[in-house]
Amino acid sequence: MKALVYQGAGKKAWMEKDRPAILQPSDAIVRITKTTICGTDLHILKGDVPAVTPGRTLGHEGIGIVEEAGSAMRNFKAGDSVLISCITSCGACPNCKRQLYSHCMDGGWILGHLIDGTQAEFVRIPHADTSLYPIPADADEEALVMLSDILPTGFEIGVVAGQVQPGDTVAIVGAGPVGLAALLTAQFYAPAQLIMLDTDPNRLEIAKRFGATDTINVAEGDAVRTLIAMTGGIGVDVAIEAAGTPATFDICQGAVAPGGRIANAGVHGKSVELRLEKLWIQNITLTAGLVNTNTTPMLLKTMQSGRIAPRQLVTHRFPLSEIETAYEVFSNAAREKALKVILSAA
Amino acid sequence: MKALVYQGAGKKAWMEKDRPAILQPSDAIVRITKTTICGTDLHILKGDVPAVTPGRTLGHEGIGIVEEAGSAMRNFKAGDSVLISCITSCGACPNCKRQLYSHCMDGGWILGHLIDGTQAEFVRIPHADTSLYPIPADADEEALVMLSDILPTGFEIGVVAGQVQPGDTVAIVGAGPVGLAALLTAQFYAPAQLIMLDTDPNRLEIAKRFGATDTINVAEGDAVRTLIAMTGGIGVDVAIEAAGTPATFDICQGAVAPGGRIANAGVHGKSVELRLEKLWIQNITLTAGLVNTNTTPMLLKTMQSGRIAPRQLVTHRFPLSEIETAYEVFSNAAREKALKVILSAA
Repeated sequence: MKALVYQGAGKKAWMEKDRPAILQPSDAIVRITKTTICGTDLHILKGDVPAVTPGRTLGHEGIGIVEEAGSAMRNFKAGDSVLISCITSCGACPNCKRQLYSHCMDGGWILGHLIDGTQAEFVRIPHADTSLYPIPADADEEALVMLSDILPTGFEIGVVAGQVQPGDTVAIVGAGPVGLAALLTAQFYAPAQLIMLDTDPNRLEIAKRFGATDTINVAEGDAVRTLIAMTGGIGVDVAIEAAGTPATFDICQGAVAPGGRIANAGVHGKSVELRLEKLWIQNITLTAGLVNTNTTPMLLKTMQSGRIAPRQLVTHRFPLSEIETAYEVFSNAAREKALKVILSAA
Repeated sequence: MKALVYQGAGKKAWMEKDRPAILQPSDAIVRITKTTICGTDLHILKGDVPAVTPGRTLGHEGIGIVEEAGSAMRNFKAGDSVLISCITSCGACPNCKRQLYSHCMDGGWILGHLIDGTQAEFVRIPHADTSLYPIPADADEEALVMLSDILPTGFEIGVVAGQVQPGDTVAIVGAGPVGLAALLTAQFYAPAQLIMLDTDPNRLEIAKRFGATDTINVAEGDAVRTLIAMTGGIGVDVAIEAAGTPATFDICQGAVAPGGRIANAGVHGKSVELRLEKLWIQNITLTAGLVNTNTTPMLLKTMQSGRIAPRQLVTHRFPLSEIETAYEVFSNAAREKALKVILSAA
């Protein structure tokens, strides 16, 4: 089969590789029908995630058809259409028992990280019964791919962790796919203001279309000052960090109101300076984490009922065999006006 | 009357000052019967809190007797024994309506900060109906003084914000009065391990007596490594920061388990380096804030029912007129083996 294989920092290849085989009775082999590329894959390619070693097939999102079901599987059989969660969960360990699937002691984020991932013709899914979701017959397949990671990440790590409430003022710093997923799902909770910040005018335009009440171009002046002014001098109830840099984190900590929440959804490669000398007295809550995907069934219902249209996040489509071109486009997202790219098997 | 007056960084004096008068109909004038000194007062004296200007009477804790009740007061009358909350709350502003009394828009922490405080023979309490608590007839007066600030701070900002749960492993970094208050109140929730960290062997001994299951002397080796080893390599569910330094904060962020909480109760004079490059994936929650004292009635009940004995925190007693000596003792807490000092009016 063909797979997109990490070759060490800065290098990757779409190359021939052995088809994965069942290793445990709870494994499934899934034939990928659609997959996508995540910002995290770009971090890996930069060499930011040293746990990923050369030879690893990348990718942790996608949908497909069960090719082979391990003998212990009960929930799925060969031929079933499935949504692959970016998080593998055994369902049995102490962390799974408290829905902290991201830290499953025999799973977590392993696809395209510690084991071969979904940017391939076939993928092995451990603990398949608890790590795959059935696909409704009439579901939009492109939209479903957004449910592997990006939509639950924006929702769980941005909106739910940030405790967005009716009437809240919410700032989302970073209008990439995760930030926009937070923007879409924040609207479940009827916030009063949804302010999107980015440096890219195109993404800010998209944010307006997706429901942002206001936008701030961070390249034009002091974003913290603007946010404070927009909120009558008080600051925002919720600041969602969706870019992963010290500068974007600073906007969040500068603009959060007393009693407010900073929800960090960005992937950080560096430490940040936390201004505890100001914040210790401000009654703030800061959260950071990896998606648990425990809300995937909930999000699937919002999608099926038309409350949310994750398909909007898809801007580009390629055959799976052209994944290297797709990486080119996704790596130059601003120039290409790209959000999520969909790769479809022939 | 006499009052302990801030004279600029490093200086204070027990001196003659005009008795406070009612300024608003909702004010009360309270004759202080007992007060105490807080670590925050020492911060102020170091010049760490620039909002405190020379001439300010210090202190934000104490009990007393209503000397004069403003004409709009309904809950208290002259002669009533009252507990003074360190937080003044109007009860009516948007922040008070959500129990964020620490950020009351016409109050918050103002006593001994923005207005004259309790280290005096008399104090003016604004919004007295909502900022004073009635004292039960049989209550232990010294224990009550602990309820002005230190006990609710350890409880609300340490234990409640840290979401201590039955079976949790809890580390408390800093065995001063706030850390010990967190230690006492954490036991309401039946944690499995309560590990106290400090550099002072005397305070660690006290912590053992107060219910710590384990102690770590931070001066002897790598505290993070010890905590990780004590928790089977997992880390602690809750790390309560009760010292206010970058080094103690580092212990908390180094030792917190995936899915864990860091509750910052320390007063910080400097920023800290937050290791988001490690924590972004760890599903942690960090909280920081000033006490709201919304749990004061709850704590009063735990005290009255004998579930907690805050009197244990009192190590030294002085007449109010000897407050300068008391400051000497409290400033050299390790040498003097001091926790809280009680100052009693003649």
